[in-house]
Amino acid sequence: MSKPEVFKELQPLFSPRSVAVIGASNDRNKWGNSTFRSLMDNYKGDLYAVNNRVQSILGYPAYKKVSDIPGHVDLGVIVIPPENVAGVMEDCVKRGVKACVIITAGFAEIGPEGKALQDEVVKIARQGSIRFVGPNCMGMWSAAAKLAAFMFPMNILEGPLALISQGGNIGGALVADGTARGIGFRHYVSCGCTADIQIEDYVEYLGYDDSVKVIMLYIEGLEDGNRFVEKVKKVTRLKPVIALKPGKTDAAARAISSHSGALSGSDLLYEAAFNKAGVLRVESSTELLDVAIGLLTQPLPKGRNVVITTPGGSYGVMCAEACALRGMTVVDLPKQAMETFNQMFPSRWSHGNPVDPAGDRDFVQYMRAPEVVLGCPEVDALIFMGFGSFSNISSVFAGGSSGPDIMNFMKNIDGFEEMAQSALNAFNSEDRDQIRGIVKFILKIIFDSIMPSKNLEMEDFLETLTQSLTSEEMLESSFFKTLKEILISIVAGDVDRLKTVNVMHLMEPIPGSLVRGLIEKYGKPVITTTFTEGNTQLSEAGHFPYSNADRASNVLAKLIDYREYLEKYGEKKESKV
Amino acid sequence: MSKPEVFKELQPLFSPRSVAVIGASNDRNKWGNSTFRSLMDNYKGDLYAVNNRVQSILGYPAYKKVSDIPGHVDLGVIVIPPENVAGVMEDCVKRGVKACVIITAGFAEIGPEGKALQDEVVKIARQGSIRFVGPNCMGMWSAAAKLAAFMFPMNILEGPLALISQGGNIGGALVADGTARGIGFRHYVSCGCTADIQIEDYVEYLGYDDSVKVIMLYIEGLEDGNRFVEKVKKVTRLKPVIALKPGKTDAAARAISSHSGALSGSDLLYEAAFNKAGVLRVESSTELLDVAIGLLTQPLPKGRNVVITTPGGSYGVMCAEACALRGMTVVDLPKQAMETFNQMFPSRWSHGNPVDPAGDRDFVQYMRAPEVVLGCPEVDALIFMGFGSFSNISSVFAGGSSGPDIMNFMKNIDGFEEMAQSALNAFNSEDRDQIRGIVKFILKIIFDSIMPSKNLEMEDFLETLTQSLTSEEMLESSFFKTLKEILISIVAGDVDRLKTVNVMHLMEPIPGSLVRGLIEKYGKPVITTTFTEGNTQLSEAGHFPYSNADRASNVLAKLIDYREYLEKYGEKKESKV
Repeated sequence: MSKPEVFKELQPLFSPRSVAVIGASNDRNKWGNSTFRSLMDNYKGDLYAVNNRVQSILGYPAYKKVSDIPGHVDLGVIVIPPENVAGVMEDCVKRGVKACVIITAGFAEIGPEGKALQDEVVKIARQGSIRFVGPNCMGMWSAAAKLAAFMFPMNILEGPLALISQGGNIGGALVADGTARGIGFRHYVSCGCTADIQIEDYVEYLGYDDSVKVIMLYIEGLEDGNRFVEKVKKVTRLKPVIALKPGKTDAAARAISSHSGALSGSDLLYEAAFNKAGVLRVESSTELLDVAIGLLTQPLPKGRNVVITTPGGSYGVMCAEACALRGMTVVDLPKQAMETFNQMFPSRWSHGNPVDPAGDRDFVQYMRAPEVVLGCPEVDALIFMGFGSFSNISSVFAGGSSGPDIMNFMKNIDGFEEMAQSALNAFNSEDRDQIRGIVKFILKIIFDSIMPSKNLEMEDFLETLTQSLTSEEMLESSFFKTLKEILISIVAGDVDRLKTVNVMHLMEPIPGSLVRGLIEKYGKPVITTTFTEGNTQLSEAGHFPYSNADRASNVLAKLIDYREYLEKYGEKKESKV
Repeated sequence: MSKPEVFKELQPLFSPRSVAVIGASNDRNKWGNSTFRSLMDNYKGDLYAVNNRVQSILGYPAYKKVSDIPGHVDLGVIVIPPENVAGVMEDCVKRGVKACVIITAGFAEIGPEGKALQDEVVKIARQGSIRFVGPNCMGMWSAAAKLAAFMFPMNILEGPLALISQGGNIGGALVADGTARGIGFRHYVSCGCTADIQIEDYVEYLGYDDSVKVIMLYIEGLEDGNRFVEKVKKVTRLKPVIALKPGKTDAAARAISSHSGALSGSDLLYEAAFNKAGVLRVESSTELLDVAIGLLTQPLPKGRNVVITTPGGSYGVMCAEACALRGMTVVDLPKQAMETFNQMFPSRWSHGNPVDPAGDRDFVQYMRAPEVVLGCPEVDALIFMGFGSFSNISSVFAGGSSGPDIMNFMKNIDGFEEMAQSALNAFNSEDRDQIRGIVKFILKIIFDSIMPSKNLEMEDFLETLTQSLTSEEMLESSFFKTLKEILISIVAGDVDRLKTVNVMHLMEPIPGSLVRGLIEKYGKPVITTTFTEGNTQLSEAGHFPYSNADRASNVLAKLIDYREYLEKYGEKKESKV
């Protein structure tokens, strides 16, 4: 598809070659100071300071006006009192500035007087072909130019998300939360009062930016709902758009009016517009990020049949409830799976879905359970509970697996010392096939050493885990680092050195690798829960867990919604975004 | 009120003088091993190991049967295969054991065969006057005896909460989450299939245990709803009882049946029973802990009028929506408060509720806002957003407030070195009145140094903060430690030493102290939000924040519900539990 006009218009905003901060200041108690520092930290292009009272700002020469700047200026960032913005905009037009970010507040959101001021600024910008963000915003981030034009320096991870927010506060917290969880942003715009560039304009631009995989919106009010639907529905057929839109209540509508100056409007109309446009609606900022991460990292399920595996019954109950309340089917276990679980688990296991081994101490069997159900065609998705607990549980149970224990264990294996040496050789020569063979063999030894083997077929499980664990990005993981340390100690016969190795570090990337391997192999979503509030960081093996059944089942429901929308309107797509 | 019969019956369970673990094991792959280790770690009474195959367990002599133990045994913890439990129970009766915890699973939850086994055990126990927990449970904790009779060692903080859970998994996670957040437990019972002691029995016991302030329940099914209502409603008039009860859907009902063997029953009947009994119902484990902490630390509001203060508009919008959706009134600001805010904030402030200074850089004014509204009789409660951000924000804004800057600032104050010396003398002599005077003076200096003063009256604010900050438990806080270090450096004229002081540590306890001071002074709830997922730990100053508007407003709604219930049925109570 050819790129729309707006793509060209917004390029100077998202990839400016030069930026001027109008209102840059040496006074640490002014926004113009922290805004200028925010840009100084990272921006790759030419940076200019504009201040009509001093000679220099934080080591940069200060120009009295934008039009005094000798070089070309793509983007103007405006941090001055509202009454002076129109004049500055005129000067920007004169200088040939292409785009502006108006951080200054005190426009439409404060009433008719501010609205008049805002209209004046819009008129000047339009006449001069300047597109602008704001006013009354916190600024923006664009990864390409490392442009952090914020009211104060913020730490943002680069990545495939984009966020357009009519609230700078919520936007900043989302960016901070995403960064803390390990997921990054290509673009973030705090769009404030959206006097010029509308939310659908940003969405249209982002739709055609291939580095953006998921678009997140915080909306207080739209200028033109029909225009939004027309523009956004073209994008949702290519990539997901998720929106948080408060305003169901009068209290929120009043707060919106005094915040962004927007008319919140009827919630039913918004609901209808989002449905028509294929926008996934969420109810909180946490959910916004949860769903974005789900869409980014999981394939879309083919149907509504979910299986739950849980290391504890009560969490299984909560998860079954959460899934059923969201219109999913907690599907009857296929006969084949029932029979396999009857062999794997103690006779007290739950004998149904949720699959609960009911306190089986052999947690290796629990890790095999996903493979058993994902292979069944009746199963569209899995919620795998207790993610990450294995390493904790194993430290409780396997207190005997210290370095010397492992040494003793391994000494009983014929020719192990030679094997250790040839394993080290393989790691050094980076022969992937050999590494895979060795890792698989060693995984089997580890599982046998932690839990007495039931002599059950675990070929599928070991193969899936090995493939994932030996992928390129895992070769520097704690698994390999620890394994190498153990092998070196064994070859040297150095028990003292072996004692210093924390064997639990071997286990850390295993749950995440397993989940990634399963997603890869079966093309079905495998959503995980940790049981621990706030524990939703990217795991070492590249997987994002959720903290509870509610969040996990909600993400799965949104994946289903999006799949159903795409089946109706979208381009053919079956795998992850 | 006189204590009920059940209080006497359950004393040996909650405060046993001696415990025997039946099925204790040396094999680290058995539950009997980790259960015994769990007790070894902390239990204060006599501990015995029972195992009919070995001579000793982890250094303790092993007895073949309970009846072989020479000393008295109050409590038996049973971790053996289900078919042997009845025989052991007979032996316990013979030995005069008073109570048991049956961890073993494989009873009613697996079907008719297991149910028959369970009935047999109940019969023997009843005849021998033994009350028991379980079967099919994860064990229990009682702080008085430091009794951690769990399937594996767990780290539990002692405190004023009690939890009775039909799910060991959810119960364990709640205890771990509470401990991580900084709130502790007096008792926790994973009650499993509740074959003997019913949930209402535990509640009745806990109702009369004065060290328990809030009772939390996870219920899968009740044996006798009327008995529950009769017993529990007596307790809810004394202290709050909160319940999580899944089972609205068939999927959950089926999962419950295979988990605890309970009949989930009609959700409408449960809803009615909870209403009659005055039990506050919640929908997730996170909410269960959130509400418990709220009831523990906040006064009950007199009505539904809430004011929201927010450092950012969008979060104010989300909070107004969350409050309105839960039946609260986002009340019009009283005229007096409007006038004060007109003086305190820039003219672009929100001019209403939510109170949003709209990017005012003078965050000292934002900290004063609560005092302005809490004093108004129209306001029943406050949600104070952005808790804890002050220290972060100030580090961004007040980059100039390094040690030497402070030295320079202070040098301009007449006779400051003498004052520093007399401040140190006051701290050393622990003269509280003098300390208060000094702290108040220094707080004013700090706020003036960070933000240019507007010369507004801040007497109330300073007084509230000073009172709270100089309370007994705060004298070892980072505020005093850092302040002393600064004063010592100033008296010694040692600028190098001053450079090593992190002045931001002065700020850390300030938000929490302020909130505690406000609650104390006005007797109204002040619920706070951090904006950061999972950031809900106890602050240094003894305050628990929530992470977002949804959680905060939900807690406030439950406080209102409980207040309204007490007004109808309870004993007179106006302040915090």
